[in-house]
Amino acid sequence: MKIGFDGMGGDHGPKETVKGAVDALEIIKGDIVIFGDDAALRTELSKYKFDASRIEVVHTTEVVGNDDKPVKAIKGKPDSSMVVGLKALRKGEIDAFVSAGNTGALLAGSLLKVGRIKGISRPALCTIYPTMNGASVLVDAGANAECKPRNLIEFAYMGSMYADKVLGLKNPKVALVNIGSEETKGTPLYIETHKMLKETDLNFVGNVEGRDIPAGNVDVIVADGFTGNIILKLTEGVAMQIVSGLKKQIMKNTIGKIGGLLLKRNLSDFKKMIDYTEYGGAPLLGVNGLVVKAHGSSNAKAFKNAIKYAQIGIESSLVEEIRQKVSSFANAVEESSDDEA
Amino acid sequence: MKIGFDGMGGDHGPKETVKGAVDALEIIKGDIVIFGDDAALRTELSKYKFDASRIEVVHTTEVVGNDDKPVKAIKGKPDSSMVVGLKALRKGEIDAFVSAGNTGALLAGSLLKVGRIKGISRPALCTIYPTMNGASVLVDAGANAECKPRNLIEFAYMGSMYADKVLGLKNPKVALVNIGSEETKGTPLYIETHKMLKETDLNFVGNVEGRDIPAGNVDVIVADGFTGNIILKLTEGVAMQIVSGLKKQIMKNTIGKIGGLLLKRNLSDFKKMIDYTEYGGAPLLGVNGLVVKAHGSSNAKAFKNAIKYAQIGIESSLVEEIRQKVSSFANAVEESSDDEA
Repeated sequence: MKIGFDGMGGDHGPKETVKGAVDALEIIKGDIVIFGDDAALRTELSKYKFDASRIEVVHTTEVVGNDDKPVKAIKGKPDSSMVVGLKALRKGEIDAFVSAGNTGALLAGSLLKVGRIKGISRPALCTIYPTMNGASVLVDAGANAECKPRNLIEFAYMGSMYADKVLGLKNPKVALVNIGSEETKGTPLYIETHKMLKETDLNFVGNVEGRDIPAGNVDVIVADGFTGNIILKLTEGVAMQIVSGLKKQIMKNTIGKIGGLLLKRNLSDFKKMIDYTEYGGAPLLGVNGLVVKAHGSSNAKAFKNAIKYAQIGIESSLVEEIRQKVSSFANAVEESSDDEA
Repeated sequence: MKIGFDGMGGDHGPKETVKGAVDALEIIKGDIVIFGDDAALRTELSKYKFDASRIEVVHTTEVVGNDDKPVKAIKGKPDSSMVVGLKALRKGEIDAFVSAGNTGALLAGSLLKVGRIKGISRPALCTIYPTMNGASVLVDAGANAECKPRNLIEFAYMGSMYADKVLGLKNPKVALVNIGSEETKGTPLYIETHKMLKETDLNFVGNVEGRDIPAGNVDVIVADGFTGNIILKLTEGVAMQIVSGLKKQIMKNTIGKIGGLLLKRNLSDFKKMIDYTEYGGAPLLGVNGLVVKAHGSSNAKAFKNAIKYAQIGIESSLVEEIRQKVSSFANAVEESSDDEA
C-alpha cells in the first residue's frame, strides 16, 4: 500500500508535512510517497530517523498557491506537487493522495486528473465532525457552494458509507441540516431533499437543527457546501474562542492559576475531544480514487492522522464500495426525480 | 412609555414571563402591559411585591402554540395574547411588543397586524450575537429562509442602524457571511450581494468566515435567514456542549473538583460572556412598530433583558429612524438592481 502525500501543501510547508509523514510511519502499515521540491523535502527528512525504504520522494518543481484560481492552477502548473500526485493516483501508482493545499484546486484537480465515479454528479468533502458523543460525519463541508436535491442525496449515501466503512458506525443515522424539525422547514432545496431522503433506503432520521449538531446524536449530517463550510468553521471558531476565554479566566488571578493547574490533566482530555487535528483529513468522496483534503493549517499531528485515515479508507475499499453501490442509489435518485417531475 | 409583553409566550409560560416583567420594572422607566389569561397572570403576579400601577393586565382567551401554522394561527386566534398585543402596537396603545411565542406566527402577525415599513421588502430578525469581544449584531437570524440580494442589503442597513442606535457602535463594521474572503466566493446570492454592498454607503468590510464570526471583529453580520438561524443555534449548541463537557471534566475526580471550586468565581464571569439571556431579545426590524422576539426557552432573566432592550429601542426611536432612512437606502438598492439588469 502506498499513500501519496503533497509535501508542499498547507500553511506550514514542508516542515510540518515531512514531520507528519515520518510520524505516520509508526502507525500505518503502508509506505509514503511525498511529492514536492526534492531539496526542501530532503532537508526536512534529514532531521529524523526512520526506515528510508518506506518514504519515497517524487521531485516536482511547482506549487499550487492558496490564492491561485483552481482550474487555472491545475492547467498552468502541470509539474506541481498537487497535479503530479493526482496523476499518480489515477495511474494507480499510489492508493490515496493526501493534500492540505488549496481546496478549490484540489477539487478541480481531482475532477480533471482523476475523474468522478460514474453516476455521481458532484464529489463532496466529507469531514469528521468531533462531538461530545464521539464523531459525526459532515458532508458536504465546502466543495459545492450551490447544490440541487440530487447532490444532497448523493452526499447522504456517500457520507453514510464513510461513517460505516471508516468510522465503524453501523446503519448510521443520517440527518439533514435545517432550521426546524418539521419537513416543511427551510428553503425549497431542503424541503425537496427531505422528501427525497424519506424515500431512500438510508437510515434517515429527519432534520437536525444547529443547536443539536454538536450533541452528536446523529452520525451523518447532510448539508449543501455553503452551509456545511460555515458549520465546520463556526464550530472551530466558537471552540477556539471559548478555550482562549477560559485560559484568560484561569490566568486572571493566583487562585485561578492554582485551579487551572489542578485541572490541567482533566482539561487536556477535554481539549482532545474538541481537537480537529485528531482526525485531520476529509476525503473528497465521489472522486474515482481516494483524495483526502487535510486542513490548511494542519500541523504534523493533523497530517499524521490524515494519513492514518487515508489508510483506513484504502483498507476498507471505500472508493470501490461507492463505485459498486452507486448504481443502486443513482436509481433511487432517478426515481425520486421522476416523482418530482 | 408602555412596553407590551406576551405573558403566554415561550416554553416556561406565565411563571417566567411574569417574574421577568416584575424584575424588569427595576431597570426600566416605562410601564408594562401584559397580554394573557387574567387568572393565570394574576396568580403569578400575586407572588411578588411591586408598584401595581406599573403593570397592566389585558385579558386574552387564546394562545398561539409552538406547533401552530403561522398564518392560520394569526387568523384563527384573534383573541390570542400575540394577536391582541400586536393590534395594540398598531393602534399606538403600546410602544413595543415583546413575545417569546412561535417565531413564524410572530412574523406573520407582525406583517398582517402591524405591517411593514414602506420600502422594506422583508422584515428580519436582528439578534445580538455575544462574542469574546463584546457583541455583534446578526441579521437575519431566521425570519426569511430564502432571500434575494435586495433583502440582504436591507438587512445590512437595518442591522447597521440597530448596532448604532441600540448597542452604541458608531459607524459599525458590516460584514457578509461567506465561505471565503474573496468576493467571488459563495453562491450567486452572496456574490451578487457582496457586489451591491460595496456600492452602498455602509461601512462594509467584506466577507466574514464561520471561523471568524465568534471573534467579534465585525459589528454587523449579514446572512440569509437559513444560514443566520444555523449560525445562531450552532453557536449556542457548541457553547452548551463545551460548558457541559467542561463540567464533566471538573467533576471527574477530587483534584478536578478542587480546581473547579477555586475557579468558580472566574468561570462565572466567563459564563456571563457566552450567556444569551444577557441580551434576551431580537427585534423584527422592518416592521412598522417595535416587535421583539424573545428566545423560546427564555427564563425570567432573559425576559427582563428583552424588555430592557425594547426600552432602548423605543428611546432611540429605532423604528422611526429606519422609516426615515429607508428612502435613501431603498434608492441604493434600486440603483444596484438597475446595474444588475
